[in-house]
Amino acid sequence: MIKLIVLDVDGTLTDKIRKISLDAIENIRKAISNNIVVSLVSGNVIPVMFGLKTYIGINGPVFGENGGIMLNDSKITPFFDKTLPEQFLNEISKTTSAREMFTNKWRETSVAFTMDEEDIKTVLKKASESGLYIVDSKFAWHIMNKGQNKAFAVEHLKKLYGINNSDILVIGDSDNDLNMFELDVHKASPSNASQNIKNLSEYVSKYPYGSEIVDIFEYYNVI
Amino acid sequence: MIKLIVLDVDGTLTDKIRKISLDAIENIRKAISNNIVVSLVSGNVIPVMFGLKTYIGINGPVFGENGGIMLNDSKITPFFDKTLPEQFLNEISKTTSAREMFTNKWRETSVAFTMDEEDIKTVLKKASESGLYIVDSKFAWHIMNKGQNKAFAVEHLKKLYGINNSDILVIGDSDNDLNMFELDVHKASPSNASQNIKNLSEYVSKYPYGSEIVDIFEYYNVI
Repeated sequence: MIKLIVLDVDGTLTDKIRKISLDAIENIRKAISNNIVVSLVSGNVIPVMFGLKTYIGINGPVFGENGGIMLNDSKITPFFDKTLPEQFLNEISKTTSAREMFTNKWRETSVAFTMDEEDIKTVLKKASESGLYIVDSKFAWHIMNKGQNKAFAVEHLKKLYGINNSDILVIGDSDNDLNMFELDVHKASPSNASQNIKNLSEYVSKYPYGSEIVDIFEYYNVI
Repeated sequence: MIKLIVLDVDGTLTDKIRKISLDAIENIRKAISNNIVVSLVSGNVIPVMFGLKTYIGINGPVFGENGGIMLNDSKITPFFDKTLPEQFLNEISKTTSAREMFTNKWRETSVAFTMDEEDIKTVLKKASESGLYIVDSKFAWHIMNKGQNKAFAVEHLKKLYGINNSDILVIGDSDNDLNMFELDVHKASPSNASQNIKNLSEYVSKYPYGSEIVDIFEYYNVI
């Protein structure tokens, strides 16, 4: 029986330009009223996640920076720091088109940037040499510490609530969700998900961009 | 004809515990698709306003800290600074129950705090002596600079878009909205608004907490 649902945000609850699905919010609220714990895990910054928690009415902790930082009951817990990611971004900014995102001022455990297509290969190589973890959330590139990913957040929640893998449902669409899709939990995705995510999904909805939520929630009997 | 709508958030688009009304979001999106510019002005921090702008799909600038800071097209413009408000909070923290809000780390032009009932009178007196502006948003007390209020934001938008007072509709519910309700623009409020706000409203809806939005938008022919 599902006790905890972990949701990615962009592309999973939203459309391509990040407008959130009202139908998704409605069904999240229904699941919460059925005593399911819902948690959000995103590449976004923690104050944005705080806003989503507040205005949607999310009952579980929310994670920003791909799992690197958690907000629960007005308490912020960073699990990593951004010294190494910041050094890396400073370094590549000198020789490539990498441009800092304005949201970095609110990041505590990672940095985000955009770059021109032609620099991607070079930067990925440098990141792999540096031992850092780099991921494309479709809206930005994120440089994080080793071990900083969404599976880390799911493992943290599992311990926090003292539940089993079979009690957990994760929903995501992009390759920055892959780590949590490699866990032995229930996994579902919208029709717009990447092929990698679909391959690891237990259930793939035929609906995209937030409209899959009601379908997936019905499939798993949480509403 | 209304060209610009300025919306307060907490209590105007949300219920008492700050869950946002999906019906309000739906009607805001409708007004935007009718080429109305919609802007949000709140006591909240600017990254939370950035999140609301992104996920609702707000087309105008958003203001945080009661008008002290604006975000537009990924550019943040602070119009004040928080040196004096911060000094004030440090000072009163020594002798009263004033407790800093955890969101202050994301504030750039003001500070927010909570305090026990019995200290309110003393703190208001000290604030008035210090020449700062203090306001209760129902969720926290906010200390701001002189001239930092929601009317400042409305005047800024008026210049930005080169429009007249009669083109502007403001909607709010609390006494921290009073400054903008003193302007000679169109003003409307939900049924949960304070008596001061209702007295200054051109139209008071009989619906509360976000469900007034469709009613007010129909009254002003923006949807």
